[in-house]
Amino acid sequence: MKPYSIGVDIGGTTVKLGLFLNGSEILEKWEIPTDKSEGGKNIIPDIAASVRKVLEEKNIPMDQVKGAGMGVPGPVDANGFVEVCVNLGWKEIRPAEVFKSIPGFEDWTVAVGNDANVAALGEQKMGGAKGFSSAVMITLGTGVGGGIVIDGKMVAGSHGMGGELGHLTVNPAETARCNCGNHGCLEQYASATGVVRVAHGLLEKDARSSKLRDMGEFSAKDVFDLAKAGDEVALEAVDILGTYLGLALSYVTLTVDPEIFIIGGGVSKAGSILTDAIEKHYHRFVTLSEHHALVRTASLGNDAGICGAAGMVE
Amino acid sequence: MKPYSIGVDIGGTTVKLGLFLNGSEILEKWEIPTDKSEGGKNIIPDIAASVRKVLEEKNIPMDQVKGAGMGVPGPVDANGFVEVCVNLGWKEIRPAEVFKSIPGFEDWTVAVGNDANVAALGEQKMGGAKGFSSAVMITLGTGVGGGIVIDGKMVAGSHGMGGELGHLTVNPAETARCNCGNHGCLEQYASATGVVRVAHGLLEKDARSSKLRDMGEFSAKDVFDLAKAGDEVALEAVDILGTYLGLALSYVTLTVDPEIFIIGGGVSKAGSILTDAIEKHYHRFVTLSEHHALVRTASLGNDAGICGAAGMVE
Repeated sequence: MKPYSIGVDIGGTTVKLGLFLNGSEILEKWEIPTDKSEGGKNIIPDIAASVRKVLEEKNIPMDQVKGAGMGVPGPVDANGFVEVCVNLGWKEIRPAEVFKSIPGFEDWTVAVGNDANVAALGEQKMGGAKGFSSAVMITLGTGVGGGIVIDGKMVAGSHGMGGELGHLTVNPAETARCNCGNHGCLEQYASATGVVRVAHGLLEKDARSSKLRDMGEFSAKDVFDLAKAGDEVALEAVDILGTYLGLALSYVTLTVDPEIFIIGGGVSKAGSILTDAIEKHYHRFVTLSEHHALVRTASLGNDAGICGAAGMVE
Repeated sequence: MKPYSIGVDIGGTTVKLGLFLNGSEILEKWEIPTDKSEGGKNIIPDIAASVRKVLEEKNIPMDQVKGAGMGVPGPVDANGFVEVCVNLGWKEIRPAEVFKSIPGFEDWTVAVGNDANVAALGEQKMGGAKGFSSAVMITLGTGVGGGIVIDGKMVAGSHGMGGELGHLTVNPAETARCNCGNHGCLEQYASATGVVRVAHGLLEKDARSSKLRDMGEFSAKDVFDLAKAGDEVALEAVDILGTYLGLALSYVTLTVDPEIFIIGGGVSKAGSILTDAIEKHYHRFVTLSEHHALVRTASLGNDAGICGAAGMVE
């Protein structure tokens, strides 16, 4: 048994890397810049060189490493093919094959997945969903991402759209357009900017007094902080967020029925006021069974990507 | 290799059975009545006795049969446990264990699944989705059921709610209540009674002339037949049906992203006027990729259940 593996989380600005022992213990974490020049053709060679250097420093022979998993910020199909990844400049590339073509890495097991799916696998293997074989993660950040893990395996989807929960149509009546071109996507309400947009909408509707109105400009964190302090408009904004996330969770439940939902990303730092709002509406939308999936916040933070990537190497 | 297997589709009135060669060729089909007396305790012994009799008639020794798969009309969890099945009177039963406890069947492989999931597996292995590894079936009948097959395996769900697509909330603004207690479920629009309800709603809204109005009472088939003939109200009803089914397909796509959707059940006999209406709206709701799953009608009819059940025996 080869004891080591590498987890790689490729972002638009930096690449996060981790050296793992026995698939779960992080021995070392480091980062390198993402070189997006020339269609991103240096990204994988840069990763390989950096990995080689760290292994040499630690006196770990290449043949003691099982392989590497990589999370990519864009759609990856079930065969590891990336049609296009605008965040990296990649077009029609099979990253695992490129990696394995670099001298010294030919015998490694290399697996590739969408970063949100990979993060979900990380939370399922080592984080908030540890001990559950089926888990769904929703990441509430600048955008809204998702990842589906069933029986310990990521569901990439046949066109790379597995777990693209940010673009579930939760409000067909919405007139504002989402970045994807559609109307009423979950991302328009549950992302950091979405929460702020919802609160502004409530302030415009009537003249209720609210600390949010006094602030003029505010963040998603402000909305949650004021909701915790009892601000009526902020509480209503959180309830709207809970309604749309509850709807999204009901759609996922009636499709794959996971054991647990993990809420991650910056917005999830709001904690139980958010998960309580989600659960209230989620239970209301799923009346078929008294048993519902658990709703918990993520626990790995920025390490979810490298943990899930290492977890892909089997 | 044992060449034979048995597929069993347990319904509330009759049990359908099939004897299969090499997992896919139907050698014999037959039915027995479902005895729901005494909490349905005779159902499995009746099935075993009937199977034994048919095998004896065909001179097939018990040890030449790999096993049996069974579809059950209610929720079955991923471990084959049935908490409650109102259609059969069952409570807290593990049907596979009961079957294997009957003398002569101890060495059989016995698998159990929800009937809609099992039918989806049948269409994926031998019917309209043959050749595709991931397929989702939606059955439009008295109610609306569904089944999810990913990588050739049914997704039962951790509480037996995998593929319960009839209860996706497609219209949160609906005031009429669904049988499940919720409002705005897909089943309220896309079942046979749902189509009729939608058409009646349109007739009540204004005074447009329509053959449907002249008929007074009509069926889902009448609505589709008149839509094909150009009746304006009937066409609008079909478009509403397409909208809600398109929404449902978008939810499933952004969760598990299958290669193909199979539309089954009585309503699916409408054919391309139905699948065209679905595709029009489905494509509109999924703008993330130009690649969409295919939408086709089922091909196995009432045999989907026994085919899928036999397909569970591996």
